[in-house]
Amino acid sequence: MTDQKERSTIVLFSGDLDKAIAAYIIANGAAAYDREVTIFHTFWGLNLLRKNELVQTKKGFLEKMFGKMMPRGADKMGLSKMNFGGMGPKMIKRVMNKHNVQTLPQLVDMAQEQGVKLVACTMTMDLLGLKEDELIDGLDYAGVAAYLADAEQSNHNLFI
Amino acid sequence: MTDQKERSTIVLFSGDLDKAIAAYIIANGAAAYDREVTIFHTFWGLNLLRKNELVQTKKGFLEKMFGKMMPRGADKMGLSKMNFGGMGPKMIKRVMNKHNVQTLPQLVDMAQEQGVKLVACTMTMDLLGLKEDELIDGLDYAGVAAYLADAEQSNHNLFI
Amino acid sequence: MTDQKERSTIVLFSGDLDKAIAAYIIANGAAAYDREVTIFHTFWGLNLLRKNELVQTKKGFLEKMFGKMMPRGADKMGLSKMNFGGMGPKMIKRVMNKHNVQTLPQLVDMAQEQGVKLVACTMTMDLLGLKEDELIDGLDYAGVAAYLADAEQSNHNLFI
Repeated sequence: MTDQKERSTIVLFSGDLDKAIAAYIIANGAAAYDREVTIFHTFWGLNLLRKNELVQTKKGFLEKMFGKMMPRGADKMGLSKMNFGGMGPKMIKRVMNKHNVQTLPQLVDMAQEQGVKLVACTMTMDLLGLKEDELIDGLDYAGVAAYLADAEQSNHNLFI
Repeated sequence: MTDQKERSTIVLFSGDLDKAIAAYIIANGAAAYDREVTIFHTFWGLNLLRKNELVQTKKGFLEKMFGKMMPRGADKMGLSKMNFGGMGPKMIKRVMNKHNVQTLPQLVDMAQEQGVKLVACTMTMDLLGLKEDELIDGLDYAGVAAYLADAEQSNHNLFI
Repeated sequence: MTDQKERSTIVLFSGDLDKAIAAYIIANGAAAYDREVTIFHTFWGLNLLRKNELVQTKKGFLEKMFGKMMPRGADKMGLSKMNFGGMGPKMIKRVMNKHNVQTLPQLVDMAQEQGVKLVACTMTMDLLGLKEDELIDGLDYAGVAAYLADAEQSNHNLFI
């Protein structure tokens, strides 16, 4: 009836490598089929948007502790199952490489190229003491109200 | 076309503090935007509806064991990540307090005040041996059929 | 307006017994209410479709390791919480039996009888080195594109 594109909205709550890969494969697939796609990164899901390098920022004590304990970026994340102190992610990455599946950083790049809207949850940033300088470029910054507005126009909503 | 309100239906399966907070923030946000919201608490998600105090009930052996092992109420739950034997939840609570974010018990109160329908899954209650007396006031009690009826009228369905 | 059936599409990503039970209870419920239901098994969710017995196949080293480490079939899965080295699943199974709730293998059979479409994600099969011979009968085999086509026609989408 309308010319509006179909929409998919994904909440990425998890900081697990395998769940993030699943989220980005679904998002990239949906974008390839010309859907408008948003990934709203909240809680541990924000970690995958962190830059690899250490960025100097002014933080309180609790924020510093969180910053140190949480993985910095898509390349540092663990698996939800069979992590084995980091051996699991290495195996998964070797297997993905062998089968020409893209790595998570490549999936994130591809999502940005395809126009997937990557949103960092500002409430979580506040809570965990993350600053915009510490996150990768090209993100949107918004709160739960913006997520809800997107979700309302999507029939394909996932919480991952 | 119709005057019906938009609907959001959330299955809260998880017993993790962080996931429950996310579920209730989304639910309260949606209710504030005048959506009809249902949270269907099933499996470990029922724990957050337990009263803080011990309630005397007649139970079989397995039910007693489950009752002892599972956290009693929203204030006793652990984190899905970085729980560190309970230190993680304390840190999160201090950070939330510092940033004036509501605690989970406050988020539950607010949801009830806003008319969010909080449903306890009766099949899980049977399985885990939980009685109505052990749960907070103001709940609905229903099974998967009632959940499916709500979900069918929602375009915003999440499993958390 | 149309005679089309309502549709539910579930991504089963998790390999946890409790989450799989929840997914299949929802799926069977929806099928009983005459909805068209698809469960798309990806990542660890594929494990529940593995046959109980060992099937001889030609595999590389990494695939063999994954094959050995992952649970073979619905009867071998652990709980997301309170697994206690396998005691948790035994307790849950005894409790489910006592309350006449179906076991996971029974829930899978029932889903197949009710015409729920059980899909094995071919990309994950490639990655983990799983062959069709190792999986139960009556499955569909498809990739993320097929999932997205189903999801687009569903208002009830869950990621479990």
